[in-house]
Amino acid sequence: MFITVYPGSFDPVTYGHLDIIQRGAKVFDKVIVAVLENPSKQPLFTVEERVRLLVEVTQEIENVEVDSFDGLLVDYMRLKSAKTIIKGLRAVSDFEYELQMASINRKLNDEVETFFMMTNNKYSYLSSSIVKNVAQYRGSVKDLVPYPVEKALQQKFSS
Amino acid sequence: MFITVYPGSFDPVTYGHLDIIQRGAKVFDKVIVAVLENPSKQPLFTVEERVRLLVEVTQEIENVEVDSFDGLLVDYMRLKSAKTIIKGLRAVSDFEYELQMASINRKLNDEVETFFMMTNNKYSYLSSSIVKNVAQYRGSVKDLVPYPVEKALQQKFSS
Amino acid sequence: MFITVYPGSFDPVTYGHLDIIQRGAKVFDKVIVAVLENPSKQPLFTVEERVRLLVEVTQEIENVEVDSFDGLLVDYMRLKSAKTIIKGLRAVSDFEYELQMASINRKLNDEVETFFMMTNNKYSYLSSSIVKNVAQYRGSVKDLVPYPVEKALQQKFSS
Amino acid sequence: MFITVYPGSFDPVTYGHLDIIQRGAKVFDKVIVAVLENPSKQPLFTVEERVRLLVEVTQEIENVEVDSFDGLLVDYMRLKSAKTIIKGLRAVSDFEYELQMASINRKLNDEVETFFMMTNNKYSYLSSSIVKNVAQYRGSVKDLVPYPVEKALQQKFSS
Amino acid sequence: MFITVYPGSFDPVTYGHLDIIQRGAKVFDKVIVAVLENPSKQPLFTVEERVRLLVEVTQEIENVEVDSFDGLLVDYMRLKSAKTIIKGLRAVSDFEYELQMASINRKLNDEVETFFMMTNNKYSYLSSSIVKNVAQYRGSVKDLVPYPVEKALQQKFSS
Amino acid sequence: MFITVYPGSFDPVTYGHLDIIQRGAKVFDKVIVAVLENPSKQPLFTVEERVRLLVEVTQEIENVEVDSFDGLLVDYMRLKSAKTIIKGLRAVSDFEYELQMASINRKLNDEVETFFMMTNNKYSYLSSSIVKNVAQYRGSVKDLVPYPVEKALQQKFSS
Repeated sequence: MFITVYPGSFDPVTYGHLDIIQRGAKVFDKVIVAVLENPSKQPLFTVEERVRLLVEVTQEIENVEVDSFDGLLVDYMRLKSAKTIIKGLRAVSDFEYELQMASINRKLNDEVETFFMMTNNKYSYLSSSIVKNVAQYRGSVKDLVPYPVEKALQQKFSS
Repeated sequence: MFITVYPGSFDPVTYGHLDIIQRGAKVFDKVIVAVLENPSKQPLFTVEERVRLLVEVTQEIENVEVDSFDGLLVDYMRLKSAKTIIKGLRAVSDFEYELQMASINRKLNDEVETFFMMTNNKYSYLSSSIVKNVAQYRGSVKDLVPYPVEKALQQKFSS
Repeated sequence: MFITVYPGSFDPVTYGHLDIIQRGAKVFDKVIVAVLENPSKQPLFTVEERVRLLVEVTQEIENVEVDSFDGLLVDYMRLKSAKTIIKGLRAVSDFEYELQMASINRKLNDEVETFFMMTNNKYSYLSSSIVKNVAQYRGSVKDLVPYPVEKALQQKFSS
Repeated sequence: MFITVYPGSFDPVTYGHLDIIQRGAKVFDKVIVAVLENPSKQPLFTVEERVRLLVEVTQEIENVEVDSFDGLLVDYMRLKSAKTIIKGLRAVSDFEYELQMASINRKLNDEVETFFMMTNNKYSYLSSSIVKNVAQYRGSVKDLVPYPVEKALQQKFSS
Repeated sequence: MFITVYPGSFDPVTYGHLDIIQRGAKVFDKVIVAVLENPSKQPLFTVEERVRLLVEVTQEIENVEVDSFDGLLVDYMRLKSAKTIIKGLRAVSDFEYELQMASINRKLNDEVETFFMMTNNKYSYLSSSIVKNVAQYRGSVKDLVPYPVEKALQQKFSS
Repeated sequence: MFITVYPGSFDPVTYGHLDIIQRGAKVFDKVIVAVLENPSKQPLFTVEERVRLLVEVTQEIENVEVDSFDGLLVDYMRLKSAKTIIKGLRAVSDFEYELQMASINRKLNDEVETFFMMTNNKYSYLSSSIVKNVAQYRGSVKDLVPYPVEKALQQKFSS
């Protein structure tokens, strides 16, 4: 079976992420969406909330599994017996950072291969940060994130 | 009347910003320089100080108005009945961030158009951060910012 | 009156160009689409054909004029009493080339200002070259160029 | 069976290409290396020579097939019943061009997915052009291309 | 005597830095590796620890001196009677930041010249941040940093 | 003695090149400006004309020598017993190409080191191509190239 891991912060998941998940699920037997627990960042949503939202918005795609991990991605890959990583690329700044990460991951485990997928043009401007920024000021995020995420954002910023 | 908004942090205004304001004022009937109140950043100057410095350095350009706003830029545009935004572009990193912002602004209000102006080559290396960094260590900022800003920086860092 | 010039090769005009023309026409009193006669390049369409296609696809936008010029853009601007240029930006490579052109144009005439507009995400991958490449091999260009251009391309490549 | 296509000019194949082929062959059931017959470029090696060199340098990798095609890549994909393309990414300029190609390919056939693989750091400076340039002036290309290509280059430039 | 200064945070020194130091030491009579005391950043290693590690890993290169400074680099250059700065360039993001710094340094003292050296391809993905990230999760940094730095990292993260 | 080579096409030399030559001459004992005879390009000026113009515009800088070469740069370096190359960097596109060239040169001779110098902001938009383009249409190149080059361009395009 051909398993791939799609790692990220997903704070929260956007339509851009969902597009990568859907396209990945067409190609691979199984896509594991893996939420990174990064102690040094201050996320808006807890890991549990991010996992729950991902589960909710991917429930109709059969071969998707949502999980979370901390530590090094290559260690998590071994644990899951997965050999490929998928990542979306939007812009040049993404590109350089992601190439650096892919290089270090191959250095740490040269059996791991990273496949970069082009983000859909429609979502090339989209990021979790920009979504949070719009939601914080009560702007509409309807076209940017799936409905459950929209609701969750409203709740976060209504207090 | 043809109004444009030039939004930014202006913490503090540099000769690079002033060049964009002057060139914008030649083309548009009115340029509103709009200082963004960003609660998440820790600025050196308060919004009031930044507005005051902008007023001082633009006082000889008749069709410039200085203001401040918080919240979403598109909401502020509606309030001011303005349809165009101007932004200076220096480098590739600027370019990608600004394109993202222009995309999200058009998504939120498709009547708003962003015009990017090329920063004068003379000031292509200049940013508010670099000015603050030089001033902090008593380096000369005479060629980087107008006189009132130079004085204000000296005061901030003399304590 | 607030006139702007949108210069380019337009060999042929694509939906990406048309989007810039439409958005420019909303902001400015008049948009002059100016086809550059570049003797050193070997175009697919003659200047006359390119002008005719532009006229056809912009006929419903009242304040658009199609023209052609050779020589320096700044000389053409003087002739037309126009002070602003508009250009679409897609990618980083565009950005650097266009900044270079905007700099030299300001050097040659410092009353000329270039405004860069962000290409619609939907068309960020689109260029005249790619359109010609697809058409050459009988691929469908229906979503890439207006109908009259599609027909013209079929004719060029049917011989 | 999980087939992927690795398209390119391969004029001639370098160690950078070979690295992508080897890594692709570890992940996919079959890698079809597809030499593009591009009538508008003037290659050093004919399509037949390029195919022969690729066959020679990949002969020990079982699941690699070498082929050539002209026309649109998406048409070739359909012919081969392949759904994924692999491409190596070296630099920012690659990145923008390849994203454009991946976008147009998805536009022409949305079942086709492009996976970008990071070129090995060791070969990040390497291109067929630079190899030809070095060989032309009798520089050593021993570390840049496999032995059969080195011989073929010497023959081309010995006349 | 031809002195150059190689400034940086070196938190901690990596094989990428060491490669620049070694190559610099072949060209210049003396290389002063100058650790910047940056009060606004929160380093992993103190300035003293960073200096000590640099001294240890460069002890076999005769014409290298390790030092630290705070304040403006141009002031430090004057103090040391040095006229040239060397910096390693890895990626486009480096490039833009470093050009900005080189511009401001020439503005502050036009006798100071910055020479950019290309980072060895082998280390193009390497940064102090990525090293710290890997070490924090007990990943092997053996190929990324010299032995004394590896030990120092283990000690930092063993508590 | 500390010799450096500044290679290029110089078709023709601009104020941007001259700035690099002047700054290089302050740092190195001798700067050899080396005009590349590239048979595959169609230059405006012959190698002899380009050398003559360079000699003329650098005659007041004592430690500059003008020369020409064909073949590989590393072979020329050996011939001249020079160990360092200087190159000016303007933009990201320069950066990637020049890094590629520096890598291949180190591969061919690892004793050769390339130092990149930042092009003066004033000339960051300037290239030989743009100068030829302006001169061709009788635009003023007075601020772009030294006087002898201006005259030579007028002569070329007066016929």
